[in-house]
Amino acid sequence: MESGGGGGCGGAKRWGFRPNAAAASAATWSVRGTLNKIRAAVPAGDARVAIPLGNGDPSLFASFRTPAAAEDAVVAAVRSAQFNCYAPAVGIPSARSAIAEYLSRDLPYKLSSDDIFVTGGCTQAVDAVFSILARPGVNILLPMPGFPLYEARSVFSGIDVRYFDLIPEKGWEIDLEAVEALADENTAAMVIINPNNPCGNVFTYQHLAKVAETASKLGIMVIADEVYDHLVFGSNPFVPMGVFGETVPVVTLGSISKRWVVPGWRLGWVAICDPKGILRETKVVDSIASYLNISTDPATFIQGAIPHILENTKEDFFNKIIALLRETADICYNAIKEIECITCPHKPEGSMFVMVKLNISCLEHIHDDVDFCKKLAEEESVIILPGSALGMKNWLRITFAIDPSSLVDGLGRLKSFCRRNAKLRN
Amino acid sequence: MESGGGGGCGGAKRWGFRPNAAAASAATWSVRGTLNKIRAAVPAGDARVAIPLGNGDPSLFASFRTPAAAEDAVVAAVRSAQFNCYAPAVGIPSARSAIAEYLSRDLPYKLSSDDIFVTGGCTQAVDAVFSILARPGVNILLPMPGFPLYEARSVFSGIDVRYFDLIPEKGWEIDLEAVEALADENTAAMVIINPNNPCGNVFTYQHLAKVAETASKLGIMVIADEVYDHLVFGSNPFVPMGVFGETVPVVTLGSISKRWVVPGWRLGWVAICDPKGILRETKVVDSIASYLNISTDPATFIQGAIPHILENTKEDFFNKIIALLRETADICYNAIKEIECITCPHKPEGSMFVMVKLNISCLEHIHDDVDFCKKLAEEESVIILPGSALGMKNWLRITFAIDPSSLVDGLGRLKSFCRRNAKLRN
Repeated sequence: MESGGGGGCGGAKRWGFRPNAAAASAATWSVRGTLNKIRAAVPAGDARVAIPLGNGDPSLFASFRTPAAAEDAVVAAVRSAQFNCYAPAVGIPSARSAIAEYLSRDLPYKLSSDDIFVTGGCTQAVDAVFSILARPGVNILLPMPGFPLYEARSVFSGIDVRYFDLIPEKGWEIDLEAVEALADENTAAMVIINPNNPCGNVFTYQHLAKVAETASKLGIMVIADEVYDHLVFGSNPFVPMGVFGETVPVVTLGSISKRWVVPGWRLGWVAICDPKGILRETKVVDSIASYLNISTDPATFIQGAIPHILENTKEDFFNKIIALLRETADICYNAIKEIECITCPHKPEGSMFVMVKLNISCLEHIHDDVDFCKKLAEEESVIILPGSALGMKNWLRITFAIDPSSLVDGLGRLKSFCRRNAKLRN
Repeated sequence: MESGGGGGCGGAKRWGFRPNAAAASAATWSVRGTLNKIRAAVPAGDARVAIPLGNGDPSLFASFRTPAAAEDAVVAAVRSAQFNCYAPAVGIPSARSAIAEYLSRDLPYKLSSDDIFVTGGCTQAVDAVFSILARPGVNILLPMPGFPLYEARSVFSGIDVRYFDLIPEKGWEIDLEAVEALADENTAAMVIINPNNPCGNVFTYQHLAKVAETASKLGIMVIADEVYDHLVFGSNPFVPMGVFGETVPVVTLGSISKRWVVPGWRLGWVAICDPKGILRETKVVDSIASYLNISTDPATFIQGAIPHILENTKEDFFNKIIALLRETADICYNAIKEIECITCPHKPEGSMFVMVKLNISCLEHIHDDVDFCKKLAEEESVIILPGSALGMKNWLRITFAIDPSSLVDGLGRLKSFCRRNAKLRN
C-alpha cells in the first residue's frame, strides 16, 4: 500500500479515512466554540466567581429555576415507565397535538398534530430544515448579525449563504430592499429571528407583514426562529410569523428551552405554519419527516411530559421571568450608557441579549473585539461573546439574563476594565 | 417570476424550495418506516392484542422494566436543577468519564474521558461518524444483512456502500475474503454489529481478531456497533472490538438503550478505541467533535444521571434480563422448528433477534416476505420485519425480546398463519 498520512502505526501504511473539512469549517461558526476559547482565558487564580454574560442560559441561577410543574411532569413521565420506548420519528402524538394547540393560541388558524415535528431542541430543528433544503446551487438569506448555527449548517450542507442587514438605526429592522436585491431563482428561504438574538429587538406586526409580502413576492419560505417566543418586555408584543402563513409559507422553529429556562432538556419543534398547504404540496413536509426518520429523537419521556408542562405552568412563572428580564435589561442598558467605549444603539426589549458597539479607537493595546473579550476574561473573569463570532467585528453580544446581583457585578467589572484600558485624553 | 411547481397559491408563482431526493431515498432504508407500513395492516377490529415481533424494544413489558436505580438517578438529576443547562457538545465531563470507565472494564487498556463522545442514542453516534466520513468518492463496507440506518446515512451523505456477506452456514460469520476483495484506496471503514442485529449471533474472539487483521491490512477503521453489548446467552462471551484497538483503530458505538431497556432515553456514545492514537493524528477525532458542535445533544440531566446508572445497577438486573432473553430465544427457536415454511439457520445466542428463511414456494398466494408480513399482520395482528427491509428478500427478522407469554401467543399465531396458507401436499 502507498505510504502517507496516518503515521504512528509503524510506518508505511496509508489509512483510508480523512478529517472532514466541512465539519471543521462549520464548527468555526459556533457560539459554543468561541465561548470555550474565551472561557479558557479566565485565570484559575481569580477568587471571584466568573460572570457568564456569554450565552442565553440562566438555568443555574435560582431566580430563573424552571417551575415545579415542569419538573413534576418529567418525573411523573419517568416514574410511569410508559415512555422508556422508542418514539415515532416525528414525535409522539400527545406531544405533537399539545404543541399544535399551544402555538395555535397565537395564530388566526389552527395547527394540527401533523404540522408539528418534535425535535431535539431548536438545534435539531435547524439541522432538519437546513439538511433538506440543501441542493446543488441553492442559496439562503440570513440576517447579519444572526445566530452562527445557521451558517454552520449551511456550510456543512453546501448551501450558499447571502446576508441581509439588520439596521441598528431602525431598531434592528430587516433591510428588506437588500433581501429583494439578494434573492434569485435559487433562493429557497430567508431566516428571521424574533424576538431577536443577538440584538434584543422585537419585530412589529407591520414589519413582519412586510417580510411576508417580500418573501411571497420572491417565492421563498420564511424560516422563523422563535426560540425566544414570548420573552418580550418592551412596547412591541410578540407576534408569531405564522400569523402571516396565508401570505407566505412559514416554518417556525421553537422550543421550551428559553421560556421554561431548560435548554438542557432538548425539546423543540418544527411547526409548519402554512394553511394553504404549499409546503405539503411541494413535498417539503415529507422531506422533513424523511430526514427525522434517520435522525435521533428527543427523549420519549420528555415528549410524554410536554402536554403537562404546557398546560400546568402558571402565568405567575412567566410573569416573574419577564419582570426579571425587564429589570436586568434595564440594568444592562443603563450600565452601558456609563461606559465610554461601548455604545448601545437600541434598548433591548426581548430575548436575552443586547448587541453593543465597541469603540476600539478609545482603547489602549486592544486590537479588536476578540482581543477585548479575551483580556476581559483574563483580567476580570467576565465572559462576553465577541461580535466577530456573529460576523460583526468590534461589536459585542451581552446577555443580561442572569441574576441581577451577578449582572451588576459583571457590568461593574466591565466598566473597570474599560476605564483601565482607555486611552488617556489630552 | 416564472410559473411552475408549488401551485396552490393562486397560480403564477414558482417557489424556490424543493423536496429533498436524498432524504426520501435514505428514509426508504428505515426499520421504523417499514414497520409503520406493516403495523398499518393490523385490523382495527381484532379483539386480540397485536404482538410486536418487529423491533428491539421490550420496554413496555413489565418483565423488562428498567431497574429502579436507573429511574432514581434520572429523577434525582431532574430534581437537583443542576442539569437544566446546555451541555458541552462532546458531553458533560462526569458522563464522559463514567462511560470511559465502564467500557474500560472489558478492554486491555484504559479509555480516557477524551475518548468518549456522548450522543443522542446510537442513532446520533451513527449520524456523527458517517457524516464526517463522507467525502467525494469514499466508500464503506457494510454487512449483509445489517441495520438499515447505515445505508440511510450513507445514501444521505453520498457515501458509496459495498456489501460483504454474513454467512448463515458459518453461524453468520463475516466473509472476510469478500471484505478484502471489496476494499480499495477509497474505503474508509467497515461496520460490524456484535452481538449481531439481525442474526442473533455473537462473534468469537478468534473471528474478531481476524477482522482486526483484515481491516489493518486494508488500512480501514472498524466501526463496531455494540449497542447490544453484554446481551449474550449462548456459548460465546461478548468481546468488544476495542480489545483489538492495538491492531486497528476501532470506533465503538453504544448506548444504554438495550442493556438497560430504555431506548427512549436516547443516551449513547462514540468511543475511540485506538490506543495508538491514529484517529487523533488523522484528525478524525477532531472532525467528530466539530460535527457534534453543530448538532443537538442528549438531555443534560440524563447525562448527569449516567454515572449513577452505570454504578448503581445491580448484577441481579442484568442476570434477570439475560435469563429472560435465553428463555425467549429458546421458545422462539423451538417454535420455528415446528413451522414448515420457515427455517432458522443458527440458534440465536445474543442481541434480541433471529434471522429466519421463508420458503416461499410452500405457501399459497403469498408472493414474498413483504406480502407475508402484511398478510400476517392483517390476519393475525402479529408484526414481523420483512427481510427485504434489510436487503434480504424472503427472509424475516423476528425479535424474541418480549414477554414469554406474548411470545408464545405470537408464535402460535404465526404457526396458524403458515399452516392456513400452506400449499396442499399431494
